[in-house]
Parts: sequence; C-alpha cells; structure tokens
Amino acid sequence: MNRQELIAQITKKQSFLCVGLDTEMAKLPAHLLREDDPVFAFNKAIIDATAPYTVAYKPNIAFYECYGIQGWRSLEKTVEYVHSTYPEIFLIADAKRGDIGNTSKMYAQAFFENLPFDSVTVAPYMGEDSVTPFLSYVGKWAIVLALTSNKGAFDFQCLESEGKELYKHVLETSQKWGSDETMMYVVGATKAAMLHEIRTIVPNHFLLVPGVGAQGGNLHEVAQYGMNSDCGLLVNSSRAIIFADNTEQFAQVAGEKAKEMQMEMAALLKEYRK
Amino acid sequence: MNRQELIAQITKKQSFLCVGLDTEMAKLPAHLLREDDPVFAFNKAIIDATAPYTVAYKPNIAFYECYGIQGWRSLEKTVEYVHSTYPEIFLIADAKRGDIGNTSKMYAQAFFENLPFDSVTVAPYMGEDSVTPFLSYVGKWAIVLALTSNKGAFDFQCLESEGKELYKHVLETSQKWGSDETMMYVVGATKAAMLHEIRTIVPNHFLLVPGVGAQGGNLHEVAQYGMNSDCGLLVNSSRAIIFADNTEQFAQVAGEKAKEMQMEMAALLKEYRK
Repeated sequence: MNRQELIAQITKKQSFLCVGLDTEMAKLPAHLLREDDPVFAFNKAIIDATAPYTVAYKPNIAFYECYGIQGWRSLEKTVEYVHSTYPEIFLIADAKRGDIGNTSKMYAQAFFENLPFDSVTVAPYMGEDSVTPFLSYVGKWAIVLALTSNKGAFDFQCLESEGKELYKHVLETSQKWGSDETMMYVVGATKAAMLHEIRTIVPNHFLLVPGVGAQGGNLHEVAQYGMNSDCGLLVNSSRAIIFADNTEQFAQVAGEKAKEMQMEMAALLKEYRK
Repeated sequence: MNRQELIAQITKKQSFLCVGLDTEMAKLPAHLLREDDPVFAFNKAIIDATAPYTVAYKPNIAFYECYGIQGWRSLEKTVEYVHSTYPEIFLIADAKRGDIGNTSKMYAQAFFENLPFDSVTVAPYMGEDSVTPFLSYVGKWAIVLALTSNKGAFDFQCLESEGKELYKHVLETSQKWGSDETMMYVVGATKAAMLHEIRTIVPNHFLLVPGVGAQGGNLHEVAQYGMNSDCGLLVNSSRAIIFADNTEQFAQVAGEKAKEMQMEMAALLKEYRK
C-alpha cells in the first residue's frame, strides 16, 4: 500500500488507529478454546468488529511464533483474511527484525512475498545493510525503531553522541537509506513530549506510535505534538481493545472500544491536522 | 546446556566451531530437490558429516521463516534431530530478536520451550527488559549483539558517547542483567583486532564470532585476541562449510572443511588457551 492510499483511508475513516493483534492464548474467552484454531477465530471476530474504525492491523509476530507451526498457521490465516476481506487496511508485521544483508533479504521475503504484509518493524542496531533489503519493494515499508515505549529505551536509545541522542542519529542517518514513501519510524507514546523535537527531524514521515492505553501513553499529546498535514501517525492499541472483555461479547466490546478511539481521533484530526 | 558442559565439549573435541545452517533452497544440490523436505535432508546430511568436529549448530531463522509453515517444519525437524542425536552439541537460534518485556517473553518461549534451542541471539536496542526474559531459563543463554560483522555495524555501534563506543556501552550495561553463565556476546570476526579491547571489558564471557570465511574474518587473529582460559569462543562458519560443494558429495566435502577448521582450532587452542 502506498502513502497516498494510506492517507486516503485515514481521511475517509477519520481514524489513525492501528489495532495490535497480540493474541495471547491464555487471555482468550473460554468458549473459543473449543474452536479448531482459537487464535484465528478470535482474530477474525476482532477484525470484523473493529475494521470500520481501523486503518491498520499489527500482529505481534512473537505471539504466533511461540506456538511454532500452529502459530504460523494462525498468523497466515489472519493476514490472508485481512488482505482479502479488507484490502484497504494496512498490515504491519511487528517483528523487530534486522540482520546482515543476505539475511534481512530473507526476512523481507518472509513478510512481503510469503505473507501479504505491507510493512515490517525493523531494529536499526546493525545499520544500513540490515534495513535496505526491506526498502526494495514497491508499496512496502520498513518501520524503523527510533524511540520505543518501554523502560529499557533509556538504556541505549538516549545515549548522547556528538550532541544528540542515539535515536536522533537513527532518525537522521536512516533518512539517507529510503524516503518517506518507504520508511516509517516507531516512536513510543510514553515519550509523547519528545514528538515535537522528533518532528523537526522527520517532518513528513509516518510514525507508528505504540504504548497508548495499557502502557500509559496519552493520545491527545501524541496528536498535539506528532500530527502533520497528512496526519502522519498510526497509533497502536492492543490489549485495551482486544482484551477489553473476555465473555461471548468480546468482539462487540472490542468494536465499541475501537469506535471510541476513532471518535476521539476524528476530533484530533479536526484540531491538529494542518 | 550450562557453561561447564560447553567447555567440556570444546576440550574433548578440540574445537570451538559453530556451523551456521543458513540453508538456502537455491543453493541446494539438485538431487535433494526430489526429497519431501529438501532443507531438512540437506541439514541432516551436513550435521551427520560435521558433528565430530563441531560444538554448536546455528540455524539462521530467516532462512526458514521465509518459507512460512514449511520452513518452520524444516527448522523444527533440524533442531529436534540435533537435540536427540547429538545432545552434547549447543544449539543457537540466530534470530536477532528483542522487543518489550511481554513480547520477548514470547520469543523466549518460542525458542526455549517450543523448540529445544540452548540460546538465542538478541538485539540490544530496546534495552534491559527486552533481554531479561531470555535470562530466566536455567542452562539457556541470550547472545547479545555487541559489534557485528557487517558494514552497517559502523552506522551506530561505533558512535562514541561519554568517551566510548555504543557497543562498549552495550557490553558494560548488559553485564548488570545477567552473568557469564547466561549471556554471551556477538563480536564479528571482521573486527578481530578490536577483540583485545573487548576482552578487557568482558574477560570471561563466551563470544560468538561470525564472519570467518565468506565474510573475510581471520581465525588466527580471532584466537590470538579473543581466546581466554576457558576458550571463550564459538567461531561460526556457514557458507564456507555447508556450500563448499553442491554435488552428491556435498556432505562429505562439508565434513572435510569442518575437519580442516577443527584441526586449525586444535592448534590455536594449544597456542592461545591460557
């Protein structure tokens, strides 16, 4: 999916919501455990209930990989279902991959050729040749970690070198590898106040913002400091939507939570998109 | 596998060779393509031919993940085969994983519970809570990227902060998270001369050293600058062993290449292990 299509969808749905499919077996509603593939049954119901309010889905690959072949099958069915039923929705493989060039090339094949993902999250530690293999597909994206939402972000990402923090070096250096048509950045919502400064370095790039909801980030601040004239934001919520309820009404409740966020986002688009 | 068992195996085999199973379908000997699972058939033959000279196998997860379910099945069969047939051999999932705590926990389950790996390579960019979930298993290891063997290593890993490079911060800070019984570090052989300084920071830790052979690193220098009294090294070779030949004799030739490296390593252990 290219940038124009993504922006058009945000405008149409008045939403920049990404729903994180961190589907944990232990948290599934009990009645789903009787299904052949409880993870896919859960995801399908969540997707159908939230799709009107959502511009992106983000399966967290670890939550599938931990079940081996069975998990990979649930993942495959989930992304094929989104891709065929809601082709306008942007698919993010939250995989945090990154290795030497010939290996990153294989990861790109895994998510862009073998599966119909639009984008993959990528860790920048290994530098240029670990990221560029994800940039050679038309309409596909690398979403590079800049400043993450967790406590450990402060261990290395904020180390200062030549007068600026590591995550700013990542933002500046990586811009030479690809354009705002092929790269986005991860910036955690728990660091919303830092978005203002980040926008001076990457005014046009889309930012994928995790950490709203369960991790404590504030949606209003994210929009206030991070939105640009194309919106330029995908804000992820996982647990606060998909595990809002664990009865037989789980999907309906998830839909309501997604709708609440979409309405909040519509108001923020009106206020801050300029 | 614990540290003592690994050291005992190195001493017994007079080898610190890790064979990288970067099994690329396009490079397989033609006659194997008739097999049900060509990747497993190749790996099994390579493993049987090289096991006497090898203390570790390192499947590169990308090369399996790129084939989806089929690839995951080949991976599962490969590591189960090593684990049951050569239980003394150390298994490394070269996966470069790392995410927020609840997600890294799932990756640890994927490789330590669902599969019988002894260790996983982990990217440090997201800091402490992205690594610690891999450290809570007795006899299992996180192998943290410090200084990698690729060109992109110079983009961020060598940025200086407070008088020292990022990779040195990684080495120093991460030592607070686990001991030399649960953590190793990746240090590329293409940077062998930097091993001397690295040993002043991590004198006791095992180092996983990729980049010997196809990537141009020098084994003698690695031993000279990196070996300690427990050996403290696992040197990986992938393509130079597994793809040394692509006829029906591929496994025999791979065994000969592994034996050559083992003999070189036996001499280096005699010269530098002290």
